[in-house]
Amino acid sequence: MNFSIRLATKADCKDIWRMIRDLAIHQKMLDQMMITYEDLERDAFGPNPWCETLMAEVPEENKSKEGFKAVGFALYFYSYSTFKGRTVYLEDFFVMPEFRGFGIGKNLLRTVAKVATEKQCAHLELSVLGQNINSRSFYAAHGAEDIAVRDDWHYLRFSTQSLTNFISCQK
Amino acid sequence: MNFSIRLATKADCKDIWRMIRDLAIHQKMLDQMMITYEDLERDAFGPNPWCETLMAEVPEENKSKEGFKAVGFALYFYSYSTFKGRTVYLEDFFVMPEFRGFGIGKNLLRTVAKVATEKQCAHLELSVLGQNINSRSFYAAHGAEDIAVRDDWHYLRFSTQSLTNFISCQK
Repeated sequence: MNFSIRLATKADCKDIWRMIRDLAIHQKMLDQMMITYEDLERDAFGPNPWCETLMAEVPEENKSKEGFKAVGFALYFYSYSTFKGRTVYLEDFFVMPEFRGFGIGKNLLRTVAKVATEKQCAHLELSVLGQNINSRSFYAAHGAEDIAVRDDWHYLRFSTQSLTNFISCQK
Repeated sequence: MNFSIRLATKADCKDIWRMIRDLAIHQKMLDQMMITYEDLERDAFGPNPWCETLMAEVPEENKSKEGFKAVGFALYFYSYSTFKGRTVYLEDFFVMPEFRGFGIGKNLLRTVAKVATEKQCAHLELSVLGQNINSRSFYAAHGAEDIAVRDDWHYLRFSTQSLTNFISCQK
């Protein structure tokens, strides 16, 4: 399936919001989602954005049953370590179920890895629910290390080296 | 003792760097400090800063034995939660030993709490070494909750409510 990955603009906010909700529903955590659509629009696309988002999009002929062309997203923010310097945290990552298995997630994650590498980040971190075995295998397959557990969340890290390996490996 | 708290500028970078090193030495972790002075200057005071720093400064007559007027700092960055919205992470926090006991740390931390509240952040997080009993007591006394442990690091969180309480309590 054809798809493209690009940086989100304000016009994508409705799609990002929809998928954040879908992910929260999938995680049975919708009751914990406190931000409104207006919060997200202001924070992600205001004058000093608090995060950046990459969109995965399919062409018109492959759009979803509901008519969506935006089928996945990766939302991350820049962080800083006084020991290691620049770092990135991948806060949310999602591909709509009917669009899985086409390499969209891998390409989306690889694009985040490229952003982190281009910005000379020491690592990329994220967290994933322990029960989410598929996601944990996906991240592990691309080089993430499981560095800690907090409640049911696993903290994963891609080192500089694993980011470089992931970017250069075109499998 | 008189002291003032203010946002750091590029001219403070040498003092911040000196205190990051002092803190790393105190934590017996200097070997883990990979960033150079030039990295810090570029990242903290370049066009798109990766972090912000607050400085604690004493007047000329109270300067340190070595002649330093900058005696403490708090370095933090802005983070984002797709459930909770805007958040802040306090990456490094230090007051030189000879200047402890005068309320400098409390005022520095309260100023970070004010920044977080003014920016409408859902919480302020930080981590502290388990063996650092004094720091853990200090943060707990001002309302931080111990939310997780990773290796020997304790993850602490000030909720919106505890930030508000801390700011309004002038003790």
